[in-house]
Amino acid sequence: MNPISQLIELFSKFPGIGPRQAKRFVYFLLSKDAEFRNELSGALARLSEEVSQCSSCFRYFQRSGGEEKICSVCSEDDRDKAMLMVVEKDVDLENMHKAGIWNGFYFILGGAIPVLEKEPAKKIRAKELFYAIQDRAKNNGLREVVLAMNANSEGENTAIYLLKILEPLAEKYSISITSLGRGLSTGTELEYSDKETLKDALSSRR
Amino acid sequence: MNPISQLIELFSKFPGIGPRQAKRFVYFLLSKDAEFRNELSGALARLSEEVSQCSSCFRYFQRSGGEEKICSVCSEDDRDKAMLMVVEKDVDLENMHKAGIWNGFYFILGGAIPVLEKEPAKKIRAKELFYAIQDRAKNNGLREVVLAMNANSEGENTAIYLLKILEPLAEKYSISITSLGRGLSTGTELEYSDKETLKDALSSRR
Amino acid sequence: MNPISQLIELFSKFPGIGPRQAKRFVYFLLSKDAEFRNELSGALARLSEEVSQCSSCFRYFQRSGGEEKICSVCSEDDRDKAMLMVVEKDVDLENMHKAGIWNGFYFILGGAIPVLEKEPAKKIRAKELFYAIQDRAKNNGLREVVLAMNANSEGENTAIYLLKILEPLAEKYSISITSLGRGLSTGTELEYSDKETLKDALSSRR
Amino acid sequence: MNPISQLIELFSKFPGIGPRQAKRFVYFLLSKDAEFRNELSGALARLSEEVSQCSSCFRYFQRSGGEEKICSVCSEDDRDKAMLMVVEKDVDLENMHKAGIWNGFYFILGGAIPVLEKEPAKKIRAKELFYAIQDRAKNNGLREVVLAMNANSEGENTAIYLLKILEPLAEKYSISITSLGRGLSTGTELEYSDKETLKDALSSRR
Repeated sequence: MNPISQLIELFSKFPGIGPRQAKRFVYFLLSKDAEFRNELSGALARLSEEVSQCSSCFRYFQRSGGEEKICSVCSEDDRDKAMLMVVEKDVDLENMHKAGIWNGFYFILGGAIPVLEKEPAKKIRAKELFYAIQDRAKNNGLREVVLAMNANSEGENTAIYLLKILEPLAEKYSISITSLGRGLSTGTELEYSDKETLKDALSSRR
Repeated sequence: MNPISQLIELFSKFPGIGPRQAKRFVYFLLSKDAEFRNELSGALARLSEEVSQCSSCFRYFQRSGGEEKICSVCSEDDRDKAMLMVVEKDVDLENMHKAGIWNGFYFILGGAIPVLEKEPAKKIRAKELFYAIQDRAKNNGLREVVLAMNANSEGENTAIYLLKILEPLAEKYSISITSLGRGLSTGTELEYSDKETLKDALSSRR
Repeated sequence: MNPISQLIELFSKFPGIGPRQAKRFVYFLLSKDAEFRNELSGALARLSEEVSQCSSCFRYFQRSGGEEKICSVCSEDDRDKAMLMVVEKDVDLENMHKAGIWNGFYFILGGAIPVLEKEPAKKIRAKELFYAIQDRAKNNGLREVVLAMNANSEGENTAIYLLKILEPLAEKYSISITSLGRGLSTGTELEYSDKETLKDALSSRR
Repeated sequence: MNPISQLIELFSKFPGIGPRQAKRFVYFLLSKDAEFRNELSGALARLSEEVSQCSSCFRYFQRSGGEEKICSVCSEDDRDKAMLMVVEKDVDLENMHKAGIWNGFYFILGGAIPVLEKEPAKKIRAKELFYAIQDRAKNNGLREVVLAMNANSEGENTAIYLLKILEPLAEKYSISITSLGRGLSTGTELEYSDKETLKDALSSRR
């Protein structure tokens, strides 16, 4: 296959990229010298070689040379072992971490469960989360799991599913399972708010 | 002045309407028969004749024939006189009222105070609010005022200003002054949330 | 009917205006004093009283006091009576006139014919155009009719229809019927051009 | 440097890609298996190895195994050697070629000259075009060069520059230098057209 066509096809699979922009990418790459393309290839190779998935929170991280299995965030000594926050994606963890407001541990589900999904367990790391919580309950005194899902139908559906499968653990080990508070987020205007948001905002007024 | 040009100029003052769309409006009106234009003129005249501003909540409402000064919402018997919600605009009241989740009374400020505004009192019905609260405290057992501002900088600035001028009243009559709860509103995604929203959502988790 | 609801309904019929913006218009009008609303009503009344449709080109124009039936453009002495340009709408005439590049007369069709329209004659001033051309041929030495339609499917469909009904006249009075030239318009990029445009641009190269 | 950060940086250089989408690309690549990344690397390598720039029209093309220097379009036997079309970019050639309306040869400038550019010759293959035309005039009976620039200010500026440097050749070898015709392109509406387009459309009516 023509490498130009092949690259257009590959780039078309990138999130948010259609065939037209994929083609632009290829012409862009052709207009750059071979060094740029080599740098790109090199970085791709290093992605496979140097980046691992953290065995604790499941985020992708660069190993600092050795064979460590735990990312830098999960390795921090002063994190509160009693607290675990469950997020959907790597970028969610990143944004929350950058905000500097959470001192517990993280767990990345790897996605969310669409409404009416027939095999919810396959969409996210449900089993891994179960065992992670069990383990943290037994060994680390886990007291609270915060389900930090997006405030959309997939996120809500995911939270409902997780509540169901985590209930036995929560009961057995006396763990609170909480969700992020709902209300007006920055920029929200009353004129355009749905009933749910207004109700949440009203009931959590203070 | 040419009535076509005059109408273009008047429509250009409408919110969100530029000269090009204003011109479309005029050609649209010309393409309709005189009856449509008469109906529009008639409705405008009736707006001046039949619509009043409620002397209690300051919303615009149609008088039902008589000379009543109080709108239908403020006239409802089963509203809780101990509760008052302060909103910025008529549409805010409308949206909140439609949601059917508030059983107290309303007060419309008529706007919000821009940050760095030099004459904040002129931007909103500050004095009217002060006297309304004083009156409700004396005669109706008012216990709580909810400042239901938009979650943007103008709304926050307005709330800060109102808190300051309402403090003496609140103290004298033991009125709680609250604000709508902050957190994730419907549709909010963690990836794109600012620190403030994440912090509010985390601290109001449950 | 409530004048607020009535006005929302009327404004919702304006081109490009949905119920939400219609409501904003009404609150905007309520926030202005009665004088503004009176000015609007007055301009609407004057639209009916002072604006006529030109009996020659069919555009709307303000009569300058008297009972004249011909607009200022059609009244200009130095226009070339041998040339007639047919456009779809008032704004097309306006934009062409503003460009100052056409010295003949105009005729406004009042619209265009959608593809597959079953009663094309009812969509535009077809009969009026026929008689206007016949009259100009007999009395004014008309030599050319430029069909200045938009370069979209409706415009092309309209031109095809007009060519068919005007053919007998064109033959009888030796009138050329032309169309605006196709090619690259300002801003057109080759990368995004369709075959038709490229072909037209190539065949009209110079 | 962290391969994740390095890739984000590299993807941010792609046309139309900001840091946020670049990051999504990297997480997308991490979520795919190593095979996908290898395929991408492989295609990049083959781009350097198998793709050449045509020595005639300067487009990028895949060599079919051997060491050929001329692309498939320039190799077609039945192309008219008397005709040359000059375009800005590879995609312009592609789109024109796909339209199937040009039977001459092509030349890709590799860009356009911004207005007020101080070193225009460095922005495009000006010298290469000069020699290509000289060569085609001497050896192939070249009669016409079509400057097929985009109809924007850069394209016009480029055409003006090319006309100036090609004039001596045009005169010496009696070559016509033409430009694509201007007028209404598909979709153009009279209401929104600028004076230039209306004028071109009017003067090229037929």
